[in-house]
Amino acid sequence: MVYGKKIILQTHGFSDIQDITQGVQQVVTDSQCQAGIVTVSAIGSTASVTTIEFEPALVQDMQEQLEKFASRSMHSRHSQTWGDDNGFSHLRASFMGPGITVPFSDGKLVLGTWQQIVVIDHDNRPRQRQVYIQVLGE
Amino acid sequence: MVYGKKIILQTHGFSDIQDITQGVQQVVTDSQCQAGIVTVSAIGSTASVTTIEFEPALVQDMQEQLEKFASRSMHSRHSQTWGDDNGFSHLRASFMGPGITVPFSDGKLVLGTWQQIVVIDHDNRPRQRQVYIQVLGE
Amino acid sequence: MVYGKKIILQTHGFSDIQDITQGVQQVVTDSQCQAGIVTVSAIGSTASVTTIEFEPALVQDMQEQLEKFASRSMHSRHSQTWGDDNGFSHLRASFMGPGITVPFSDGKLVLGTWQQIVVIDHDNRPRQRQVYIQVLGE
Repeated sequence: MVYGKKIILQTHGFSDIQDITQGVQQVVTDSQCQAGIVTVSAIGSTASVTTIEFEPALVQDMQEQLEKFASRSMHSRHSQTWGDDNGFSHLRASFMGPGITVPFSDGKLVLGTWQQIVVIDHDNRPRQRQVYIQVLGE
Repeated sequence: MVYGKKIILQTHGFSDIQDITQGVQQVVTDSQCQAGIVTVSAIGSTASVTTIEFEPALVQDMQEQLEKFASRSMHSRHSQTWGDDNGFSHLRASFMGPGITVPFSDGKLVLGTWQQIVVIDHDNRPRQRQVYIQVLGE
Repeated sequence: MVYGKKIILQTHGFSDIQDITQGVQQVVTDSQCQAGIVTVSAIGSTASVTTIEFEPALVQDMQEQLEKFASRSMHSRHSQTWGDDNGFSHLRASFMGPGITVPFSDGKLVLGTWQQIVVIDHDNRPRQRQVYIQVLGE
């Protein structure tokens, strides 16, 4: 069985990290599947999905690490060509990847206690970010 | 339903980035599934799959970023041991991961307008790179 | 059809890299599915799953690369706040991602000859690491 839903997040950009674990669990519950996988995919080329222990100190560490990886002030041909100054956002997003797939069992996401599913919006401005959640299971 | 197809790309190596979005969409269409997910997986340990805004300036930025991450001239034990000089290719590939999974709905890949599915061949020579595309859906 | 199994690894931490390809293939075989995908997901926020050519020289190169990316001696707000000194482990894990999805065909994982599925435990101590393997196919 396949069950999909698109959710929309208000994001602030610059690798804003938002916990969507409860939203993903709700879609799994709504699917009425007991076992399967859920693919969580950010629509667009400047956002990523991963898991993290979602606590404020680590969220800041992760943002600093992304800044170290590809700084918001870096020179990029993309920014120079298109004038939108978000080359760094694309590099962060393409490196981390646009989505993840997580198993579920007995109707519950298989995650650690301190492991949350997050969307990271790397773009350089606030956005309404669409995320597609696709459940496959039985 | 499961529907799979292997495609072959002529790649140039050194993180050659090729847009395969249309090829992936074709396999989804051929599967006759309306909703589901498609897993796109590079066969081998020196290539990755991700999404990117596929335009020439950003493609060059991404290649430069990968060079900064693990330079083609870096020392590696792997290159030293096996004499194939592609340690950097393996590190880029394992860090980015070998594949991605993308949802589709109404028979269409759920992607942004400026978001393409790409294979990145990190190896240090031209190759015939095999990519497996597996559709699950209904 | 969905078939899942949790496996447990004894890991040493500091990006200990363990080959689980045979274990994953066994779960695919046990599922009696011929074609489909398998999602391999590390439970917890300090481990990753990827593929690599699993040979000792490259394993050391990868660990050195991860050390260069986020050093075990780096300052982190997370370590400072919680006193567990594993901020670097979280950053490595969230950047690489917690899992991968691999296709299989004719009952066999679609991988290259020198491409193995590995769990990387980034934590700063030995652990019993749980990994969930979920097969979907027919």
